Amino acid sequence: MPPPPQRPNVLIVGSIALDTVETPREKRENLIGGSATYASFAAAIFSSVGIVGIVGEDFPAQGISLLQARGVDTRGLVIRPGRTFYWHGRYEENMDNRTSLRTELNVFADFDPRLPPGYITAPYVFLANIEPRLQLKVLDQVRAPSFVMADTMDLWIRTAADELDGVIQRVDLLTINESEVRLLTRETTLARAARRLLSRGLNHLLVKKGESGSLLFSRERLLFVPAFPLEEVRDPTGAGDAFAGAFIGSLAARGSRELEDLYTAALSGSSVASFAVESFGADSLAHLTKAIADSRKSQLLSMVHPSFVKQ
Amino acid sequence: MPPPPQRPNVLIVGSIALDTVETPREKRENLIGGSATYASFAAAIFSSVGIVGIVGEDFPAQGISLLQARGVDTRGLVIRPGRTFYWHGRYEENMDNRTSLRTELNVFADFDPRLPPGYITAPYVFLANIEPRLQLKVLDQVRAPSFVMADTMDLWIRTAADELDGVIQRVDLLTINESEVRLLTRETTLARAARRLLSRGLNHLLVKKGESGSLLFSRERLLFVPAFPLEEVRDPTGAGDAFAGAFIGSLAARGSRELEDLYTAALSGSSVASFAVESFGADSLAHLTKAIADSRKSQLLSMVHPSFVKQ
Repeated sequence: MPPPPQRPNVLIVGSIALDTVETPREKRENLIGGSATYASFAAAIFSSVGIVGIVGEDFPAQGISLLQARGVDTRGLVIRPGRTFYWHGRYEENMDNRTSLRTELNVFADFDPRLPPGYITAPYVFLANIEPRLQLKVLDQVRAPSFVMADTMDLWIRTAADELDGVIQRVDLLTINESEVRLLTRETTLARAARRLLSRGLNHLLVKKGESGSLLFSRERLLFVPAFPLEEVRDPTGAGDAFAGAFIGSLAARGSRELEDLYTAALSGSSVASFAVESFGADSLAHLTKAIADSRKSQLLSMVHPSFVKQ
Repeated sequence: MPPPPQRPNVLIVGSIALDTVETPREKRENLIGGSATYASFAAAIFSSVGIVGIVGEDFPAQGISLLQARGVDTRGLVIRPGRTFYWHGRYEENMDNRTSLRTELNVFADFDPRLPPGYITAPYVFLANIEPRLQLKVLDQVRAPSFVMADTMDLWIRTAADELDGVIQRVDLLTINESEVRLLTRETTLARAARRLLSRGLNHLLVKKGESGSLLFSRERLLFVPAFPLEEVRDPTGAGDAFAGAFIGSLAARGSRELEDLYTAALSGSSVASFAVESFGADSLAHLTKAIADSRKSQLLSMVHPSFVKQ
């Protein structure tokens, strides 16, 4: 009798991409990127991960072997004839604003996510930024997960509001950036935006404010997660995905859904995201160790606990 | 023999103004404002305050009596023939950006700050936002203060860099907003800007990021101070002054200059600043009690201490 299929602790679905990134000082072409890639590298620092996504035949085999080297289960990664999802973006001087110069869906246009047998009982699920319709397809296949979180973007808020609402109804945590949550709720202050979403049944809302940290709203509590102030930001691409990946990986490693553990997980997210922006592309995260991520997490904790002893 | 002149615990010098404020929804004329006014009302919640400033004969007596009712020593408040410093500003939709429509120095043009006898030994000093030349004049008169902090603005960074540098050399803490510290240091990241200022002899730097909180940099540590997420922001005018005033007042009440107490003082600053933006004009702070300010300070603390017990 064959052994039962292995079950990853964390299931991550999202885009897998080749990115060309321009900053005021540098330009890099065909970097390994995409929301699921950043999130999987980040989650794999803390827990076992199964990735679900699609790439074209131009995707470098090295990208897949890097994921595998980090223990990421790639049975859910489909390779199809054609080109990989491609994104070309340029950051302005302050690195806050970016312009998408080109987006090609390529093989992603026909993506129909199917979970390999072992994946459907993964207890922790992250629906990284893709079309809400695809996020729902994955949700329909998983069986009684402990904790599901989803990310989204302005494009889906504008073009797929109903499907996105369906996703929000079915997840434990929505992660979203500051301008997007305003767009989604049509509220000007975050406090009101959060109240509106939480009153509609969402348990937790994580609002990402970039270098200003994040706010974790839940019904009874509001928690603030600092960002690590970097001396140099090289490429902000994927910071939010890395944050979310480290968050779900760290939470899965604790096997918890308690608020204190969500906060600890968010500190790990903030730590890993800070490393993500210090270099180009997702594969830089492939070399980040848990010890280094934990050390910066301790620094973040010390930023809000004056009595915390410095190491 | 007459009793020795009373010594306020906190000395505050800055502008005292009549403000006209427009927001997308409201317009209010001739509000009692100015950096020293906001800061004094805020500091007086925690400690005894002596104010140094100048007003014209059009300044409402009610403004002075409100300060006195809060125990603010107004011997340092000079009334001169002419009109009070006047500012007219308009906030944009998001309340982040504002335009100064009109600024009239009026009696402020000839301001020559002279400290009343009791003021010169005040142990805590806040040089609120005025021309650095005037801040230096006050510094020349005080005698061995325990802790001096200064605020400034983009105008002085551009027009009085040398005098401002002289101020920075002589204070324990500089409070400044995010865009201004970039302008002052010509560094793009806050981490580098802070390192530059601290390496030039400054002990503490408090960078204000508005609704994203503040960062307190010192040589060994970096602390993050959350902002209270408000459901409605009515008038951001004076938030930074209220923060700084509550900070110095709270620190003075503790009689400390230790980092842990600076952090607690900053949480009080963040609390009081949040009340300041919930209404128009400085005099709204005249009705804020320490109990209410402390209660929101506890909420702020709970935002970064998940194990902190809710009240």
